[in-house]
Amino acid sequence: MTLDDDIALAHALADAAGAVIRPYFRARFAHETKADASPVTQADREAEAAIRALIEQHRPGDGIIGEEYGAARADAERVWVLDPIDGTRAFIGGRPIFGTLIALMVDGRPQLGIIDQPVAGERWVGATGRPTLFNGEPAHTRACSDLSNALFATTAPWFCGGFDVLRGAAGDTLLGGDCYNYALLASGHADLVVEEGLKLHDWAALLPVVEGAGGRMTDWDGHALRKGSDGRVVAVGDPALLPQVLRLLEG
Amino acid sequence: MTLDDDIALAHALADAAGAVIRPYFRARFAHETKADASPVTQADREAEAAIRALIEQHRPGDGIIGEEYGAARADAERVWVLDPIDGTRAFIGGRPIFGTLIALMVDGRPQLGIIDQPVAGERWVGATGRPTLFNGEPAHTRACSDLSNALFATTAPWFCGGFDVLRGAAGDTLLGGDCYNYALLASGHADLVVEEGLKLHDWAALLPVVEGAGGRMTDWDGHALRKGSDGRVVAVGDPALLPQVLRLLEG
Repeated sequence: MTLDDDIALAHALADAAGAVIRPYFRARFAHETKADASPVTQADREAEAAIRALIEQHRPGDGIIGEEYGAARADAERVWVLDPIDGTRAFIGGRPIFGTLIALMVDGRPQLGIIDQPVAGERWVGATGRPTLFNGEPAHTRACSDLSNALFATTAPWFCGGFDVLRGAAGDTLLGGDCYNYALLASGHADLVVEEGLKLHDWAALLPVVEGAGGRMTDWDGHALRKGSDGRVVAVGDPALLPQVLRLLEG
Repeated sequence: MTLDDDIALAHALADAAGAVIRPYFRARFAHETKADASPVTQADREAEAAIRALIEQHRPGDGIIGEEYGAARADAERVWVLDPIDGTRAFIGGRPIFGTLIALMVDGRPQLGIIDQPVAGERWVGATGRPTLFNGEPAHTRACSDLSNALFATTAPWFCGGFDVLRGAAGDTLLGGDCYNYALLASGHADLVVEEGLKLHDWAALLPVVEGAGGRMTDWDGHALRKGSDGRVVAVGDPALLPQVLRLLEG
């Protein structure tokens, strides 16, 4: 299995999820609240089921860890990590800035990641050793070496300890956004994203997208993110920002 | 001048603004910070200039109040109120959920309002006595008579006094969004928006859109919004929510 084969499959998985999700967008659908207080819809479940069916068909030996249907062969060397709709609240609210997240982890590190926005038709693809592509064209983070000039984006203060300090130090702050913040960072429109409480399926696909575009994404100690990381993440477009942010998060 | 004539002109104004704004979206452009700490870009200024030129040409006697270029004939009976890019932070950050706001006030009350999203090609049009249209089709708020089931959307806690109480009482809370929250409320995807510190150009276009879709939009005392209102607004999709929200905002 070459990386190209895996990338081709990942595109097919995102296509399948998008085909499920689009008819639900701004339609009437039921939603429930999960044990962690996050919402889930039929669209989340059906999209993940569609992705899993394709993985079972094309990579029957690979593991799968998905937000909605849990783990299968989670100890395999290769594991697909899925969040069919990241930003379910935004999806429910009719905002076209949620995303389908698809990652391939090899030996516990993400090697391939897709952030797909199926309504706007936007897809970011990152893979180890390759430039991140946005709709087929290279995406680049932008230079921003001084936190006081940085656009800091994060979903909500309550998902980001240290929020007030970061907001005070950053040039400007934008709320909401979920995975879309990392995608826009990869394309050079935002400079910093900090969050905590992320599950593996929330961050695995983001890392290859951010790093392949020239950014860095680590935990709050500056360590590489791995399966088992504590869910605190920081992503910067300009690597020079990282030590400034980590210093603030220490305090 | 019939209302139909004014609606036709308002569409032309939104078209002109969109034509200016689209090339700037996700492009490199300068931005500055204004005295009130809000950002402004070339796109804001050029879009407002394009709208004003058309008003001067087609309605030379009407007044104009715009976010970027101030007032002309502000005491006229008919005044166009303009915010070329509401949600400039979102625009700068590359999110397609900002909006161009165009209102026509007659005797101090908005009679016509447009919320236009020029990247996604989404336009909400409200006018006194007519159903709100979203891309030409009627838009309706949804039923939600109990705050504990409501989706509450607001741009940021610091633009919404009483935020913690509202978040605690609402079913769920979504941050970010600016004018787009009111548009999605009009289309039945959110139930409640509360903000403060809004200028006339921030709210004038929203009111006809919300009320023509079946919702209510008032100040925090439940009074009609007028030129000179204090910038505290509440919008509900289901009028039954309004007293519940006003009671919380009193406390």
